[in-house]
Amino acid sequence: MTRKKRLVCGVLVFRTILTIASQREGDIINITPEIKKAVLNSNVQEGIVHLFVQHSTAALTTIEFEPGVISDLKRALSLLAPDDADYAHHQKWDDGNGRSHVKAAMVGPSITIPVAKGDLMCGTWQQVVLLELDVHEGRERTVICTVIGK
Amino acid sequence: MTRKKRLVCGVLVFRTILTIASQREGDIINITPEIKKAVLNSNVQEGIVHLFVQHSTAALTTIEFEPGVISDLKRALSLLAPDDADYAHHQKWDDGNGRSHVKAAMVGPSITIPVAKGDLMCGTWQQVVLLELDVHEGRERTVICTVIGK
Amino acid sequence: MTRKKRLVCGVLVFRTILTIASQREGDIINITPEIKKAVLNSNVQEGIVHLFVQHSTAALTTIEFEPGVISDLKRALSLLAPDDADYAHHQKWDDGNGRSHVKAAMVGPSITIPVAKGDLMCGTWQQVVLLELDVHEGRERTVICTVIGK
Repeated sequence: MTRKKRLVCGVLVFRTILTIASQREGDIINITPEIKKAVLNSNVQEGIVHLFVQHSTAALTTIEFEPGVISDLKRALSLLAPDDADYAHHQKWDDGNGRSHVKAAMVGPSITIPVAKGDLMCGTWQQVVLLELDVHEGRERTVICTVIGK
Repeated sequence: MTRKKRLVCGVLVFRTILTIASQREGDIINITPEIKKAVLNSNVQEGIVHLFVQHSTAALTTIEFEPGVISDLKRALSLLAPDDADYAHHQKWDDGNGRSHVKAAMVGPSITIPVAKGDLMCGTWQQVVLLELDVHEGRERTVICTVIGK
Repeated sequence: MTRKKRLVCGVLVFRTILTIASQREGDIINITPEIKKAVLNSNVQEGIVHLFVQHSTAALTTIEFEPGVISDLKRALSLLAPDDADYAHHQKWDDGNGRSHVKAAMVGPSITIPVAKGDLMCGTWQQVVLLELDVHEGRERTVICTVIGK
């Protein structure tokens, strides 16, 4: 089954820069309310919102925002980049965040979500989350939202 | 080497909502024909098509759609989130799909593909696939296609 | 904290096709300079640039381009798809690149980056990289850059 909708011409680009405070490694922060607000403020009714976290030790994805799932995801990320592995990155900077870089590159910094009627077209349980992956505590993370549409 | 092409102004946004039926966990469904059709119907010649699966236990990526590769990818996903691990998510809902959520968050719900001459600019062997990751059988999955371009 | 900026109407689509030469499996190539140039040539000041690698054994992501991190990422990818695993893909083609397909599908072929003042809005240490994952040496990889904006 396929539903279609033709949208009129005259596309806008609207940018919001969000600053998200994280406390520590492993924080998974639900940023859906901030993104919904950015979309609402753009006055774009139909289009997409592109999100980009401007850091190499944080990432963006979607997930059901339930504490069990959050902790299961953290464990899976630690299988990919264990805490106690011997990271070559540490030989250069000795800042102990080799695992953070690896996890961030695997999950990725960017996600795009469709917009309809001025709102995100996410599933019922599907939330947009920022993954704080760095070992250094108390970070401020910049997320750039670009809404494109009509 | 770099080839360039300037495209004229007057951008459109065109949306198609696809419903994809899956049968069981591990299904990897080639949705390239449906996406090509949505692009064709949009009348957009040059731009991008953004795809988003509106669920937290399914994901989108590209792959060579060959049974061996498909089964190799399934095995890799099971390394990340083994069937027999002890998922915290199960303590809350007891629906046994902790691994589905983890895999979906790692692969991600969204992918964007360039469009030229009204068609996808994929590689010869590169197909767009929906990964059904949930343990519950017989699902209908919604994929939102947004074509943006001229 | 939130900063907002309303951008004017009249959106353009501009395409550049890059050819990136890789030497061997595991090459992680910093393509940020080429992407910056494509954005500059588009004359788009505010919008997004979408990147897509047109192959099923290569991928795109962002990372701090430091040799230690690069080698740490390679090791993590090998945990997902070990060199010595028994790949079903090999039974069909016998070309030994089962692991390449798996890694590429996990990382993904596409990334989108915001554009402001005619430049990429990446973080200070955040570079755009092409991952050469194929076992066959001396490849030419096509990356399609689509700049959308004003």
